Amino acid sequence: MKIGVVGTGVMGAPMARNLLRAGYEVTVCNRSRVKAERLAGNGAMVVDTPAEVAARSEIVITNVPDTPDVQKVVLGPSGIIEGAAPDITVIDMSTISPQVTREIAVQLERSGINMLDAPVTGGEKGAIEGTLVIMVGGPISVLERCRAALEVIGGKIVHAGGHGQGQLMKLCNQIAIASNLMAAAEAVAFCRVAGLDTHLMLEAVGGGAAGSWVINMLGPKMASHDFKPGFMIKLQQKDLRLALAAASELGVALPGVALVNQLFTAAESAGHSDDGTQALITVLEKLADIGADRAAGSKAH
Amino acid sequence: MKIGVVGTGVMGAPMARNLLRAGYEVTVCNRSRVKAERLAGNGAMVVDTPAEVAARSEIVITNVPDTPDVQKVVLGPSGIIEGAAPDITVIDMSTISPQVTREIAVQLERSGINMLDAPVTGGEKGAIEGTLVIMVGGPISVLERCRAALEVIGGKIVHAGGHGQGQLMKLCNQIAIASNLMAAAEAVAFCRVAGLDTHLMLEAVGGGAAGSWVINMLGPKMASHDFKPGFMIKLQQKDLRLALAAASELGVALPGVALVNQLFTAAESAGHSDDGTQALITVLEKLADIGADRAAGSKAH
Repeated sequence: MKIGVVGTGVMGAPMARNLLRAGYEVTVCNRSRVKAERLAGNGAMVVDTPAEVAARSEIVITNVPDTPDVQKVVLGPSGIIEGAAPDITVIDMSTISPQVTREIAVQLERSGINMLDAPVTGGEKGAIEGTLVIMVGGPISVLERCRAALEVIGGKIVHAGGHGQGQLMKLCNQIAIASNLMAAAEAVAFCRVAGLDTHLMLEAVGGGAAGSWVINMLGPKMASHDFKPGFMIKLQQKDLRLALAAASELGVALPGVALVNQLFTAAESAGHSDDGTQALITVLEKLADIGADRAAGSKAH
Repeated sequence: MKIGVVGTGVMGAPMARNLLRAGYEVTVCNRSRVKAERLAGNGAMVVDTPAEVAARSEIVITNVPDTPDVQKVVLGPSGIIEGAAPDITVIDMSTISPQVTREIAVQLERSGINMLDAPVTGGEKGAIEGTLVIMVGGPISVLERCRAALEVIGGKIVHAGGHGQGQLMKLCNQIAIASNLMAAAEAVAFCRVAGLDTHLMLEAVGGGAAGSWVINMLGPKMASHDFKPGFMIKLQQKDLRLALAAASELGVALPGVALVNQLFTAAESAGHSDDGTQALITVLEKLADIGADRAAGSKAH
């Protein structure tokens, strides 16, 4: 089976490698072509445009940063829709607007093209290891035709519902992460100002009812000011904006997400956009007027 | 060694049983004596007042609901201080004010009585199984003299620092739980209003970066409106008030805790004080105007 991959960044490149390793014929393109070229050595055919990818593929997977990027590579000039034969399937694995996802699906359908929204969790590590959780929206019959390929990419495939509902389920994930980040940052900031040993605290509370992936994986990085990104604040902010917009449309209030979105705005204004989400700690430290000296020490009050 | 247990409720009773099983002579009392009497069959001596407990003990453990209760059983009429021989140790395992803890320690010291604050995490299950995490404040030399007994009660003993610092570390735990509860409640409310299957969502996100003890243990209860308390909202509120007071004193802002405290106030005003903390979901559902009918269904928009 011939599969195209549009967008060969942090997530798309390892997906393409896993598909090549599983024996699929893979055609790739990327906005900056040099990133796509790196896959030539793994056996991928490298082309210039999404339309060319689509012309050579039965399934086209997209992994791009934001909603307008998906609109552009799917429906724009030299986009997938221009090169696609009828009955191919576009699988968008980006995290974008559920509403726009539904609109794109309608437009593709008019050209006889199938679409699945299939955002993922598990990060770069999950993409490399092929253990991503894939949350799929769209017709189950289309999912079944693509299942074998998706099983190469992910370890768990969940059918969330119709078009856009994969994206809505992914937003549940981002909603749940948001306040967990605040919880960990507040605990670490309080701990430091109270003059306690942060690592001792994290060890004491991380295994019990206060435990979370965030506090266990990012709490120590908050404590040591290691802001190397797993997931960048600017991407988390994009996802929180998507969640707040979808929630507003659905009529559900998300006070915690709104608050975290505001705290991240403060972090971004201080230059932390490209840092990992654990840099949220800097906002709490700023509110507590913990200067760099105090923040670096173990005892701060 | 002779150990006293003042307060034989959900936490104190299983601690006393574990101490008896380990061969300690245990004397107990409780405000409502009938609860203490239940331990007579396990070999405990039951008396009427904390003073009488203290007169028969080298270590007295207190497990009572709130700060004024500890002040009363330790320093009040017929309190521990009235019956205690010099050099005994009071170990307060309640969760109370760190500031008042320091004041009590000073007063006891004047009578030659040692004190440790030693609040716990792990709940009733941890108390029964002897696997609690115990966060200890006070002199390390006093902790060492009591360690053998504490090892019967808990599975992990952390020396947080001086008097009150065990309480401060426990507050870190409560701070971390607070926003995790909001995270899970918002994800479940959003999921329901978006028309997704809540249990499918919890299964999809619970193993990844959005995972937490709260979402995995309480998320399903939020979804099914099972509000049987593990930990009651009124006790969580007490702890959040302690956290906010301590944070105010230390000069650290906790916007997430403050918000969750307010949302729980709404839950309490609707009659959920004695429900488990997972009843926070009702506030989000009320904000989204999900009535009982919609909340009970899997699709609500």
